Amino acid sequence: MSLVVTGTIGIDTVHTPTATAERILGGSAVYFSAAASFFGPVRLVAAAGEDLPDAFRATLKNFAKIDTQGLEVRKGSKTFAWGGKYHENMVQRDTLFTDLNILAEAPPTVPGSYADSEFVFLGNTHPGIQQGFLSSFPKRKLVVADTMDLWINIAKPELLLLLKNVDGLALNNDEAELLTGKKNPVTAAKHILAMGPRFVVVKKGEHGCILVHKDGIAALPAYPTENVIDPTGAGDSFAGGMMGSLAASAVAHNGKGDFGSFDVVRRALVYGTVTASFTVESFSLDRLAKMHRPELDARYAEYAAMTRL
Amino acid sequence: MSLVVTGTIGIDTVHTPTATAERILGGSAVYFSAAASFFGPVRLVAAAGEDLPDAFRATLKNFAKIDTQGLEVRKGSKTFAWGGKYHENMVQRDTLFTDLNILAEAPPTVPGSYADSEFVFLGNTHPGIQQGFLSSFPKRKLVVADTMDLWINIAKPELLLLLKNVDGLALNNDEAELLTGKKNPVTAAKHILAMGPRFVVVKKGEHGCILVHKDGIAALPAYPTENVIDPTGAGDSFAGGMMGSLAASAVAHNGKGDFGSFDVVRRALVYGTVTASFTVESFSLDRLAKMHRPELDARYAEYAAMTRL
Repeated sequence: MSLVVTGTIGIDTVHTPTATAERILGGSAVYFSAAASFFGPVRLVAAAGEDLPDAFRATLKNFAKIDTQGLEVRKGSKTFAWGGKYHENMVQRDTLFTDLNILAEAPPTVPGSYADSEFVFLGNTHPGIQQGFLSSFPKRKLVVADTMDLWINIAKPELLLLLKNVDGLALNNDEAELLTGKKNPVTAAKHILAMGPRFVVVKKGEHGCILVHKDGIAALPAYPTENVIDPTGAGDSFAGGMMGSLAASAVAHNGKGDFGSFDVVRRALVYGTVTASFTVESFSLDRLAKMHRPELDARYAEYAAMTRL
Repeated sequence: MSLVVTGTIGIDTVHTPTATAERILGGSAVYFSAAASFFGPVRLVAAAGEDLPDAFRATLKNFAKIDTQGLEVRKGSKTFAWGGKYHENMVQRDTLFTDLNILAEAPPTVPGSYADSEFVFLGNTHPGIQQGFLSSFPKRKLVVADTMDLWINIAKPELLLLLKNVDGLALNNDEAELLTGKKNPVTAAKHILAMGPRFVVVKKGEHGCILVHKDGIAALPAYPTENVIDPTGAGDSFAGGMMGSLAASAVAHNGKGDFGSFDVVRRALVYGTVTASFTVESFSLDRLAKMHRPELDARYAEYAAMTRL
């Protein structure tokens, strides 16, 4: 069951209260695919400019299960760049700059070899572009989209159209409220279910997430860690771990069964939670690059023990 | 295994975005003991003025397992009164007024018949007063204290002394940081363990709690509810459910075993979480007054199913 992600690759500059990392590899599709690769193959669709550092390509190559055929390097364009500074609590952050560069141009081309992708994650971008990606994946079986306040504000009709064509939506508390006008996250998510998706994941960062599914509700705490070096990419790694786990679960069942059932999604969210807990232990993909699957499984078991009653 | 709580009884006025309730029964010892009473007997120690409405006493009497012998009604004094207004999100609130009244006088007298209490919860008040209560319970086996930013700021030496004499401390994220200077809640809680307690419960309100125990760490989400009428008393009900469950568990084991072990405390925190989820479904004790133990157990089972992997 092939998994594909559409999103960004970027050059990040991150300031935390204790350290600064300049021009490091970042972007939603990058964090997503690195996280998902611990569960199985993942196809990356993103566009970079010709300024993309060679070291970034080398880093991605080290993740053997990331298929980078869909990483388009566009001549004459510049790579998306972002700079941010975290507050003392390592939760809030200020954006220092956002150089859209290639993100303001045409979206990346999806390789024809990706057309049979069945699990699709639409990273955060204009919902019209997300909708456009869908037509590249005619064999899609499970689609999850990410979104943000900007699109809810400026492209709500397109987002509402997209929601009719996805199985799941991931967004944060404030975005769920913005989209529905409902303050309570469970109430807001239920309203979103009525817009089309079968499940909504309300992301709460260091407080975990809430899953509101047509067949049930679950709340998951984050993995309680002390070792937070850089929270950037946690949400995308969370999504990557979740989708990677969903796709792997489908493979394990020979493509039979319900890939988006409440129980399967809930379990996948734990894999997402645990994978993200490694991402934040370093800048960029540094920690994931050193991680091995047994470490992930051990922390999954630890998390399960923490929440078992 | 007898349980006692020292705390407040108050006359609350609560404004929510959709309703107002004036001069209703509130206070930490009140919410605590109502919650704890679903698990077994609980002894209440609090002081009221002679203006305490008869209806409040009648409400407490309806909770058959609350022993109100320690509810001191002091002639010539006025009952503590508090008014607050919740924001649209039902999380933040502004305090409209705090009439300390009797809280500025001598603390309540502990009845001699309570002297054999073994489980002790010290509701939030000056840590010197909390320390004083301890001497009334020479047979204490497990003591948990609540505190707040005010005491950390103005009575830190007394609080540090108290911490050497308690098994557990409950406080919120910001308070944990204020006490230790550590932003990360797990790191902060570990520093508090070094001050004396065997476990620390970091309360995160609608995001649940983190237990940092000498023998392990656990994170628990709140029960994801849509039905929040008034959050007042949620934290005290949480503590009441937790301590009630701990005391009941000790009774069930004939007083043998470790009452404060990681597994026992973690399970008790779930009972606290679930009990608090009922409290917020109404003003004052209205919902708890109508609740029956099977409802509580059903929601416990539902919560367990939500978090089971």
